[in-house]
Amino acid sequence: MPIERIAILGTGLIGSSVGMALRQNGFGGTIVGWDRDPAQTATALSLSSIDVIAEEPLTAAAESDLILLSGPVFSILEYLEQLACILKPHQLVTDVGSVKRILCEHAAGHYNQPDKPGFLPGHPMAGKEVGGAANADGEIFRGAVWLFTECSGESGISPEASAKASEWRAWVQKFGSRLLDLDPARHDELCAWVSHLPQYVSTALSALLEEKFPHDEDLRAIGGRALREMTRLGASPYSMWRDIAHTNTEAVAATLLALEQRLTHLREHLKTPELRNEFELANRFRLGTPHKP
Amino acid sequence: MPIERIAILGTGLIGSSVGMALRQNGFGGTIVGWDRDPAQTATALSLSSIDVIAEEPLTAAAESDLILLSGPVFSILEYLEQLACILKPHQLVTDVGSVKRILCEHAAGHYNQPDKPGFLPGHPMAGKEVGGAANADGEIFRGAVWLFTECSGESGISPEASAKASEWRAWVQKFGSRLLDLDPARHDELCAWVSHLPQYVSTALSALLEEKFPHDEDLRAIGGRALREMTRLGASPYSMWRDIAHTNTEAVAATLLALEQRLTHLREHLKTPELRNEFELANRFRLGTPHKP
Repeated sequence: MPIERIAILGTGLIGSSVGMALRQNGFGGTIVGWDRDPAQTATALSLSSIDVIAEEPLTAAAESDLILLSGPVFSILEYLEQLACILKPHQLVTDVGSVKRILCEHAAGHYNQPDKPGFLPGHPMAGKEVGGAANADGEIFRGAVWLFTECSGESGISPEASAKASEWRAWVQKFGSRLLDLDPARHDELCAWVSHLPQYVSTALSALLEEKFPHDEDLRAIGGRALREMTRLGASPYSMWRDIAHTNTEAVAATLLALEQRLTHLREHLKTPELRNEFELANRFRLGTPHKP
Repeated sequence: MPIERIAILGTGLIGSSVGMALRQNGFGGTIVGWDRDPAQTATALSLSSIDVIAEEPLTAAAESDLILLSGPVFSILEYLEQLACILKPHQLVTDVGSVKRILCEHAAGHYNQPDKPGFLPGHPMAGKEVGGAANADGEIFRGAVWLFTECSGESGISPEASAKASEWRAWVQKFGSRLLDLDPARHDELCAWVSHLPQYVSTALSALLEEKFPHDEDLRAIGGRALREMTRLGASPYSMWRDIAHTNTEAVAATLLALEQRLTHLREHLKTPELRNEFELANRFRLGTPHKP
């Protein structure tokens, strides 16, 4: 039985974008949406990201084949716990949370057993510095990597939920994303480096500039592409990044400490030949070319 | 007498881009170019950034109305010193160097006197992480701010050189840039924040990732827009940034220290309400909208 009804719990930027991507890629079933903020579901509905606004999230989930949890990590965690006792073995929960180990830990024993619902932890490496359904875009997953972190030792997932997991992976591929499977702990460490660290650096730099130069129009005028890129994420919402700070604390703290030390090192060597070594090492770093779906 | 002959000493990315911008905006005179690296002048000539390759830079400068010094700060400084004894009062030197106070200090007494050539320190806030004439683009100044830092107390500039300074400012406006005059010391402090700090942060982060994850393809694959923006300048050449580190050391070190302390503060408050304050302050920081010429 293919997925015919999808519940999106959390219809902000990512949740609504997933709804759009499903539609744009030919999903013919029903998408029901719910959000703590009724304005988000109203916007999602008006943009056709969802077909129906749910009256209540748990009932909407119970009536769906696949439940997508979208939003800050703690809200995903809460739904994951509540849904464990409500859903049936043929149903599949998946999510788009930025931190994975804590979700796998909480899901252990409650999902992916023959008599329990399925859970496929997921994380699209896509987003914007501005949240909300109004900024949703079904194309933001194109060219991005969509990570999955199946929890090891949980091979007891029901055949029906497993089939839905395969079908969900196929949808994600249709969205234009490249699938990549990682161990949850490795996911959290790598994401601390490639996503969480850039966010907190951007926040720290933006906060520093706002505090030091609150009214300096010259500074704001001459800041070019370099500063724009370095402070773009300064606009990101606290609500989203508080949960990441709380649930991936050690990994994030380790990346911040390492960068602090590296900046100190560079500062102490502004006029020594060691500066050349830093530049040469930096010059070698190359990101992968974006995935062309 | 309008500017009829321009010598560009240093035909890398910015020097060649200026030559192109002059042509694209109707400059009808002759542009002679010189670079320590003959490949750069050859490329600049093949791209029509310059009309003629100079045999020798000082002679080319002596025969020109306006001399544009382009390249790392120390090379600009060297030309500034050599040209002081060669040029006549009607001639004007201008530059595109990233640091201005040291240039003004060295120019003092040797330029902008009735019997000395003119010097108009300039700095377009435009560039790329890749250097060289091959990457030149006459459009890179469009929408950017072009800073000028006339040295105070130097009102003795000859009327002919002063007229050329006005004419040069008009050309820069034709390139699509917004002109902004700053005091040299304030220039160096603001540029440390908006340009030099982002560069050294990007270098430090790129070097750190290259050292810690030299062969991790997953990390390179999942790094999205955030990491791409944060490490783009890691590709910048040492040759350019060594000179800035040497000539704006105190201002750059102050910005690095301030960011280190801010990152430490954020790291120590990942799980306290102070994180909210940092995000709220960061959320208030807004760069100016780019200049629409």
